[in-house]
Amino acid sequence: MKKVWEGKRFSVLVEDNYEIADTPDAVAILAVDAEERVVFVRQRRVATGGSLLELPAGLIDAGETPLETAKRELREETGLRGGTWRELTSFWSSPGFVNERVWVFAAHGLEEGEPDPDEGEELEVVRWTLPEVERRLPELEDATTLIGLLLYLRESG
Amino acid sequence: MKKVWEGKRFSVLVEDNYEIADTPDAVAILAVDAEERVVFVRQRRVATGGSLLELPAGLIDAGETPLETAKRELREETGLRGGTWRELTSFWSSPGFVNERVWVFAAHGLEEGEPDPDEGEELEVVRWTLPEVERRLPELEDATTLIGLLLYLRESG
Repeated sequence: MKKVWEGKRFSVLVEDNYEIADTPDAVAILAVDAEERVVFVRQRRVATGGSLLELPAGLIDAGETPLETAKRELREETGLRGGTWRELTSFWSSPGFVNERVWVFAAHGLEEGEPDPDEGEELEVVRWTLPEVERRLPELEDATTLIGLLLYLRESG
Repeated sequence: MKKVWEGKRFSVLVEDNYEIADTPDAVAILAVDAEERVVFVRQRRVATGGSLLELPAGLIDAGETPLETAKRELREETGLRGGTWRELTSFWSSPGFVNERVWVFAAHGLEEGEPDPDEGEELEVVRWTLPEVERRLPELEDATTLIGLLLYLRESG
């Protein structure tokens, strides 16, 4: 692999004439609060030209396991902590040219606390009941969020 | 938006200090054949270090609608043509840094024909019955494929 461009968020590699966006792996969390509501964050996504409602998510730092990242990100973005965790799935987000692998965890039995967002990270926390998730699924536009919710609804189904 | 790197498959834009992988939008097709089997293609995905089983998919060419791309790609990759089509969903594959929007269509009532793959595109066509899809869902690792199948299974209920 030859690095042909290096950025802060990602880089570009070329292997065997294929161009690859080289990025850290990521996690997302399907967190269910004490009132059985699913927790979302709404945030600006410059690549889409707008804002998206998504499961809490973040990039895996060097030395972290996916589960450690998931617990850290959920706490930072929503204040939720503790609880019982399990892996729902993992997948490639866009394997035609991106080497991003995403893990999705489900968490329940969480305790409420104070969020601690990264500097410059403006997040609105939104909570939907499961019937609301069922009804409003067509409003969601983030691939990872759709996969997490569809798997969870299927298992809860 | 300022272009800071330009490649053949994608480019890199910077806006407001955010780096964005700028790529054509894409489509995928959940095609159900006359024997009620879902049609997959297995292909090498350099970004993943291996090969993946995915729904037939491809990039939208200039001037094409997503549905036109979907019909063209299904025919090229599998030979399947004709039939009845509907849009299942659309979403952003990795909105944190990629501006790729993906449309997924469902097609049935298709006629068999000869594939016409792009030069250098090595595809193995694989067909699974719906019970096999249900059972083997955990083997699938492509986000778009998971979303298409999970939505289809949910509607087929």
